[in-house]
Amino acid sequence: MAMTKVEKKPKVALVMGSDSDFSVLQNCIKVLKQFDVEVSAIVCSAHRTPDKAAEFAKGAEENGFDVIIAGAGKAAHLPGVLAAFTPLPVIGVPIKSSTLDGLDSLLSIVQMPSGIPVATVAIDGAENAALLAVQILSTAYTELREKMKEYKKQLEKKVEERNEALQEKIKSL
Amino acid sequence: MAMTKVEKKPKVALVMGSDSDFSVLQNCIKVLKQFDVEVSAIVCSAHRTPDKAAEFAKGAEENGFDVIIAGAGKAAHLPGVLAAFTPLPVIGVPIKSSTLDGLDSLLSIVQMPSGIPVATVAIDGAENAALLAVQILSTAYTELREKMKEYKKQLEKKVEERNEALQEKIKSL
Amino acid sequence: MAMTKVEKKPKVALVMGSDSDFSVLQNCIKVLKQFDVEVSAIVCSAHRTPDKAAEFAKGAEENGFDVIIAGAGKAAHLPGVLAAFTPLPVIGVPIKSSTLDGLDSLLSIVQMPSGIPVATVAIDGAENAALLAVQILSTAYTELREKMKEYKKQLEKKVEERNEALQEKIKSL
Amino acid sequence: MAMTKVEKKPKVALVMGSDSDFSVLQNCIKVLKQFDVEVSAIVCSAHRTPDKAAEFAKGAEENGFDVIIAGAGKAAHLPGVLAAFTPLPVIGVPIKSSTLDGLDSLLSIVQMPSGIPVATVAIDGAENAALLAVQILSTAYTELREKMKEYKKQLEKKVEERNEALQEKIKSL
Amino acid sequence: MAMTKVEKKPKVALVMGSDSDFSVLQNCIKVLKQFDVEVSAIVCSAHRTPDKAAEFAKGAEENGFDVIIAGAGKAAHLPGVLAAFTPLPVIGVPIKSSTLDGLDSLLSIVQMPSGIPVATVAIDGAENAALLAVQILSTAYTELREKMKEYKKQLEKKVEERNEALQEKIKSL
Amino acid sequence: MAMTKVEKKPKVALVMGSDSDFSVLQNCIKVLKQFDVEVSAIVCSAHRTPDKAAEFAKGAEENGFDVIIAGAGKAAHLPGVLAAFTPLPVIGVPIKSSTLDGLDSLLSIVQMPSGIPVATVAIDGAENAALLAVQILSTAYTELREKMKEYKKQLEKKVEERNEALQEKIKSL
Amino acid sequence: MAMTKVEKKPKVALVMGSDSDFSVLQNCIKVLKQFDVEVSAIVCSAHRTPDKAAEFAKGAEENGFDVIIAGAGKAAHLPGVLAAFTPLPVIGVPIKSSTLDGLDSLLSIVQMPSGIPVATVAIDGAENAALLAVQILSTAYTELREKMKEYKKQLEKKVEERNEALQEKIKSL
Amino acid sequence: MAMTKVEKKPKVALVMGSDSDFSVLQNCIKVLKQFDVEVSAIVCSAHRTPDKAAEFAKGAEENGFDVIIAGAGKAAHLPGVLAAFTPLPVIGVPIKSSTLDGLDSLLSIVQMPSGIPVATVAIDGAENAALLAVQILSTAYTELREKMKEYKKQLEKKVEERNEALQEKIKSL
Repeated sequence: MAMTKVEKKPKVALVMGSDSDFSVLQNCIKVLKQFDVEVSAIVCSAHRTPDKAAEFAKGAEENGFDVIIAGAGKAAHLPGVLAAFTPLPVIGVPIKSSTLDGLDSLLSIVQMPSGIPVATVAIDGAENAALLAVQILSTAYTELREKMKEYKKQLEKKVEERNEALQEKIKSL
Repeated sequence: MAMTKVEKKPKVALVMGSDSDFSVLQNCIKVLKQFDVEVSAIVCSAHRTPDKAAEFAKGAEENGFDVIIAGAGKAAHLPGVLAAFTPLPVIGVPIKSSTLDGLDSLLSIVQMPSGIPVATVAIDGAENAALLAVQILSTAYTELREKMKEYKKQLEKKVEERNEALQEKIKSL
Repeated sequence: MAMTKVEKKPKVALVMGSDSDFSVLQNCIKVLKQFDVEVSAIVCSAHRTPDKAAEFAKGAEENGFDVIIAGAGKAAHLPGVLAAFTPLPVIGVPIKSSTLDGLDSLLSIVQMPSGIPVATVAIDGAENAALLAVQILSTAYTELREKMKEYKKQLEKKVEERNEALQEKIKSL
Repeated sequence: MAMTKVEKKPKVALVMGSDSDFSVLQNCIKVLKQFDVEVSAIVCSAHRTPDKAAEFAKGAEENGFDVIIAGAGKAAHLPGVLAAFTPLPVIGVPIKSSTLDGLDSLLSIVQMPSGIPVATVAIDGAENAALLAVQILSTAYTELREKMKEYKKQLEKKVEERNEALQEKIKSL
Repeated sequence: MAMTKVEKKPKVALVMGSDSDFSVLQNCIKVLKQFDVEVSAIVCSAHRTPDKAAEFAKGAEENGFDVIIAGAGKAAHLPGVLAAFTPLPVIGVPIKSSTLDGLDSLLSIVQMPSGIPVATVAIDGAENAALLAVQILSTAYTELREKMKEYKKQLEKKVEERNEALQEKIKSL
Repeated sequence: MAMTKVEKKPKVALVMGSDSDFSVLQNCIKVLKQFDVEVSAIVCSAHRTPDKAAEFAKGAEENGFDVIIAGAGKAAHLPGVLAAFTPLPVIGVPIKSSTLDGLDSLLSIVQMPSGIPVATVAIDGAENAALLAVQILSTAYTELREKMKEYKKQLEKKVEERNEALQEKIKSL
Repeated sequence: MAMTKVEKKPKVALVMGSDSDFSVLQNCIKVLKQFDVEVSAIVCSAHRTPDKAAEFAKGAEENGFDVIIAGAGKAAHLPGVLAAFTPLPVIGVPIKSSTLDGLDSLLSIVQMPSGIPVATVAIDGAENAALLAVQILSTAYTELREKMKEYKKQLEKKVEERNEALQEKIKSL
Repeated sequence: MAMTKVEKKPKVALVMGSDSDFSVLQNCIKVLKQFDVEVSAIVCSAHRTPDKAAEFAKGAEENGFDVIIAGAGKAAHLPGVLAAFTPLPVIGVPIKSSTLDGLDSLLSIVQMPSGIPVATVAIDGAENAALLAVQILSTAYTELREKMKEYKKQLEKKVEERNEALQEKIKSL
């Protein structure tokens, strides 16, 4: 089996059940843009607009999306429902809601039954969802792989800087 | 940014902290072989062989791996530790252990801090880890995308068969 | 607003994501038959046969169903997904699975977001799901209301019998 | 068995153990009024006024109520206690209290033993309790079924509007 | 305020919602008999025989009971419901059921709202419920206080014996 | 066995591990004074002043105390440690701390091993701890039993008043 | 401050509240003997023999003990109570009991209030408790530090062997 | 085996994955300084700077550290990862993060697999981590043992003072 060369830009869909989740999920957009990955965001609910969710997921591959990121809270069905309708990898972001501290969102997303996986990240882990999307895309796009290595070096550097700042702070204690 | 054509076969690493996890994780191998994806399994612990774990993860990309699946139980650090050392996507499988019903394994894997994601599946969700790997690989390998669509059709068919079996069972109640 | 007289028999759909849930859910059928309520059972998965699930739920009212009971385990999306596609009342039965003792199933069903309720009963509470269906139907079917009162009297009587058996047991201690 | 035509208006009782729960539960009243369903609210505690609770539940059917909604927090016994004394369907709303984030309220309401179901909705899910009441009533009142369909369309429309607002917001990022 | 001398024997009621709880609760009877405290056991459910439960609790004081012990599982309302109808101290024993490992029973009993306490012991803690009853009774019955002191000495002695047995076991390792 | 008449006033000890718990526990004092029960409050820690805790508990009976109420948070050992050293009934109040929402405090107090019970009330349930103490004391002091009945009537009355206030509030909606 | 040379052998006390915990805790003895560390095991309960527990802990330093390991289940107070009476480091082993899967034992041990730490290991983590004791002792006994390094090498080697066994097993699939 | 006399000062490393944890962990420094124990603090992440973490842990013994304290939140791998690379005792401080109230941090740290222990203290228990380090060091440094005894006396005294303050406060109620 050989890798197939396709002339297209990498593209991610960011789907959220409610626009109230956007404050958490907008980090996804920021990170994806940083990696030059195209991203479309839509509000679309597994429960309030189920037909639209099904239609979106069914057409996602054909519409050029490579990866879907879906964030949802409470009985968070959106990522699993999208995954049911598409062969694309789906990343789920459990959103912390006003009760149960996000445990309900997490379990509703991660505990998918055999056959239909959802790649789950931490509660409110929007940034990591975007990075995981980039890692998935880099399977096909070598350029992203190199950018991811660079990103990890930046992370290291920031930790170093924070360590230096800490040393200053301690001296002044 | 254009997709890069590489002449290589898709390859997945299946890493486990203890061979006692193999009874759960062997389903990964079965599913990946079904999709004609090459898989190497190794026992390698984040705590007992940390140097080996680091070395493995650092070399994984160069050694031709596209995706890493790591299963671990209790304070399950293996997936996160591997993810720290590689730009490849890492899938984590929380293994249910003798206490706390898998909740410790799940939280130790999924709640990764910003910067280093682990794509987490359900507790003991070995089959879904393999399917997620295939979905990730299909970003680059169109052939796998088609197989995944076929797989989903088979899932549907099995549900149909079970429904028919149920109808028979009910008649005979 | 006046109650509408319709010449039809009360009818309940019992939907399960997997036939492995039937051992728990068959109690529903037993109870509903006891009340002379018609029941159809189908295997239909929110994740493996999402189109069928949508189609079933959309047609449920027209096909003469009054209430839907849906049982599911783990990231139990089935009741919520059916509820999304129908104006009928949907009762959810969280099924205990091999990990997390049913907490995941419970939260995935009960924590539905505003707009789409699922009437949730106890983990593995198949009998209560059927009784709740009867209570719902009795809003329209006075006959069922009377049967329910009779049922409650039987419950009382059984407790009395058990109390008498206990008195005998204690004497012989 | 034929549906019985009764000339009466649909009527719901909203019972709360403490008036401090009213801030959460008043959403029920708002939604029910929107559907032209009559609603009576009373403060009545399973623990502080047990006789009144028993008396209310015993007389509820005769007093023209079709459905009871009961909200309670902590060791939330009110919905179950009312259900014990009436053949009417009882909807339970777990109220989040100052400790344990609502988990105690939820488990105390949903885990009812066989024989006496309580239709449980999400923690603080007052709106859904009212919608579930409407769905139950619509078994008998066709008019409510049509209003519920209309309500679901409005939900869809709102999601659409929010999606459009999101698109604007993203453009301006 | 002076202590009132009443010529009566100490008497405890052991109430259980289901005779299936008797295997756990019979330890209560054994311990209470050991202390020469009279005990009556009855099956009586807060949900299936609510009138009987209310009647029992209302008459408990007049019928010579000093303390009520109530065991229940799942949404365990029995202890709280009895406490609502009596000024007597009520001890609650959460019974572990087939799901959630007893957490639901515990929270449903212990998290009583202000005004109506239930003295809760450990999950399946029947023996401690009886001992607590004895401690409560010993407020009035000096004889029981002395027996309790003797009991605690026996506990100590048993630990000593077990320690000696352990020393033997270790030598033979 | 006959009840022993002792000429003494009922007396309760209120023990707390830290004075930071006093804001929660002072409700105990208020309620006990309302019932004319004498109460002494002391700060005394199972961990920081273990000798004092042991000494206090050993002397409590002789010093005229009838009941001990102990409040503690986190790994809340105080109630259990006091219970180890005294034959008096000990009531435990789990205090909610800054993490885990009081679950740790609750489990550390209620899950006592066989032989040494602690009568546990709700998290932060200071008022109920005092009421339980009164109920225990009323086993010996008939006067308190009557006051408790009066107290319960007042509770009922307050619920009634709140119900009336609710009716007013609803009219003005 | 200079390290003090004392001519004594390293010595660990293994304390358990009940001999039923010995099946879990005997692993401690095995590991400590492997490191040539002297160990004394005693049964001694914080609740049933509180005086003995206090006396033991107070005398532990003088009796030549360097470290105390204490195992306990449910409301596991033993490690904390011993820590209260001694300046020695105390290691706590939460024992899984018949309910709540060890969560109660864990929280009762680890959540110690400021001032009195307990070094907590995993639920049923007897082996790790012994290894931690060795690590603590190696602060003073260089010989143990070297043995610990050797032990870690053996761990590594075993993982290697298991990896080789896995490779064989996979070939034969 | 005899204790080895080494001429060096006791030295503790305080490692944190993120400088945002410093607000919690700075208490460690305060306590250690109070005991005249040298302490170095560094920011170093198991996930963002894994090589540095490994290098630090590998060199810690040689660099004169006796004990490592590591604080981390969420999927808190840092303490376990450091423990993997060093024979020194490692103390883990679970940091409470924005979701799940610290339960994830606690389980990720305490549930270490056999072979590699982490001495875990309470969530946000920085002060106790430092005290535990002192207790460990006092195995070798007698002077610290004496200081620890003095510290415990101060704790006692503070409780006494708070008790006296409470008595004043109560009088003025």
